[in-house]
Amino acid sequence: MPDKKRIIIAVVGGEQPSPEEARLAEEVGRELARHGAFLVCGGLGGVMEAACRGASSQGGVTIGILPGNNSEAANPYVQIPIATGMGYARNVIVVRSAQAVIAVDGSYGTLSEIAHALQNNIPVIGLNTWSLSKKGLSDKSIILARDAADAVNKALDSITNR
Amino acid sequence: MPDKKRIIIAVVGGEQPSPEEARLAEEVGRELARHGAFLVCGGLGGVMEAACRGASSQGGVTIGILPGNNSEAANPYVQIPIATGMGYARNVIVVRSAQAVIAVDGSYGTLSEIAHALQNNIPVIGLNTWSLSKKGLSDKSIILARDAADAVNKALDSITNR
Amino acid sequence: MPDKKRIIIAVVGGEQPSPEEARLAEEVGRELARHGAFLVCGGLGGVMEAACRGASSQGGVTIGILPGNNSEAANPYVQIPIATGMGYARNVIVVRSAQAVIAVDGSYGTLSEIAHALQNNIPVIGLNTWSLSKKGLSDKSIILARDAADAVNKALDSITNR
Amino acid sequence: MPDKKRIIIAVVGGEQPSPEEARLAEEVGRELARHGAFLVCGGLGGVMEAACRGASSQGGVTIGILPGNNSEAANPYVQIPIATGMGYARNVIVVRSAQAVIAVDGSYGTLSEIAHALQNNIPVIGLNTWSLSKKGLSDKSIILARDAADAVNKALDSITNR
Repeated sequence: MPDKKRIIIAVVGGEQPSPEEARLAEEVGRELARHGAFLVCGGLGGVMEAACRGASSQGGVTIGILPGNNSEAANPYVQIPIATGMGYARNVIVVRSAQAVIAVDGSYGTLSEIAHALQNNIPVIGLNTWSLSKKGLSDKSIILARDAADAVNKALDSITNR
Repeated sequence: MPDKKRIIIAVVGGEQPSPEEARLAEEVGRELARHGAFLVCGGLGGVMEAACRGASSQGGVTIGILPGNNSEAANPYVQIPIATGMGYARNVIVVRSAQAVIAVDGSYGTLSEIAHALQNNIPVIGLNTWSLSKKGLSDKSIILARDAADAVNKALDSITNR
Repeated sequence: MPDKKRIIIAVVGGEQPSPEEARLAEEVGRELARHGAFLVCGGLGGVMEAACRGASSQGGVTIGILPGNNSEAANPYVQIPIATGMGYARNVIVVRSAQAVIAVDGSYGTLSEIAHALQNNIPVIGLNTWSLSKKGLSDKSIILARDAADAVNKALDSITNR
Repeated sequence: MPDKKRIIIAVVGGEQPSPEEARLAEEVGRELARHGAFLVCGGLGGVMEAACRGASSQGGVTIGILPGNNSEAANPYVQIPIATGMGYARNVIVVRSAQAVIAVDGSYGTLSEIAHALQNNIPVIGLNTWSLSKKGLSDKSIILARDAADAVNKALDSITNR
């Protein structure tokens, strides 16, 4: 891993996760903070808030790239709110600011973030999230993880190996 | 269909389609023009260019939402080039400017456009494109079409029925 | 002037012009259409609507780059509505899609469009609009026009001479 | 000042400041850090780098909203690089993420940031920067400061008083 530049990892996922997925996202946040990685996300509730809460509980740094104009819309665990005023186009920024992306659950917004990451050759680690196929062939680009610690390890490995 | 406002339909797809998919895209463009619908796309080559060529051949209107700063990067069949300078974030604009989206083939950029459309409740018609599933369940949101005329009819129907 | 590519000229200005400035904007729209230039603007009311009304009255093409998600927010004289959903960041797109910018009156949004144009070396023609100075020195980058016809002539000349 | 949310202040200015203006920007960065305010900027060189260097020297937090796709384009004093890939449209984000803006010197990009801030009712403090007038009337919206400490005080006061 680079010495000088911080590792920044995106956690993307839906606003209405199941309790189990919220626990998973929180554990991802904790693991990222334990490894000294910064967490970037869309700054709102659900998976985003759970991940920020986990990271904060371990003293980690949390960045929220918000869709609206108002930084106060950020969840309370976002330390660095960035108000883009650009609506869902902010999804592109969440992904580009990260060296790897961990997707937990999620709906079409999360799918757009997975797609933008793959389009930009940014590794995507999946936890209970989308599967992709085209013309009957399965697309294996999303790296599957079995739990939060595995997801964070695979995200960090994907950066080291690039 | 609304009287006063034009129908605008997006055609999204990859820059390197097979010859068959390029023919499909061109036929989609022709059909859109025959129905008087405007075509919006990402303005570059491949599926985008084939669709614009088809629309132009029938006197249709073609709009290209470009990623770069320079309108001259548009394919020669784009009549209205819009230079966003916003890179792939322009994918969001392509989709939002349309009442329905027809996806032909395509890679991750196209997948991001499908995702943004579904996130915004804009109907997506698929021709040889991505299939989605989550946690083992197939997602049926993409309306499958069997050929170009069927895709355009389904796109127009999806607007009428909203 | 290029043969193949259309001339596209932006008209920027405020939503609450005086009656005289609205007349000026309408006349700018008419003159642009008489010269066969396409008009691009922010798609809303005031100067934007007056300019589109003028262009439409002469059979000109009008493009509106809207801040919101909904094409129906466009003024009734916009033929090609582009819904960006990006708020005021759309100002950058209005300017970049044009080969020259005509500013009529306007407030801070118009000033941001003037600034983005000058930053991108796109000529700006001013009619009753902002004046700029820095550290006591007047900035002469805005080309002053005395009336609508003069503004359109200077805009077209600025493109030819580049 | 709010208890829970951090104060974030933008420092905007050109990439080629005079030595005196670079010193001014560095001192602004130092003063912001001494007051515990986070610094957000465009992440590149010149005034942006000088301000980040000043803030870093006092243990302050620095955020860089970059125009390109690559976080490594940030100046070495940026701790939180955000890669937008949106070109100059990122200027809007720099401004919106701040509660007040301090402009030091600067060219048209800086002018666009001043304009976007005033459009969004975000206070702008000016140090050797643009002056605005319209139709012969001077616009007094930019709050003039005589030195770096005065600029930071006025920025903090402008937030308290809103």
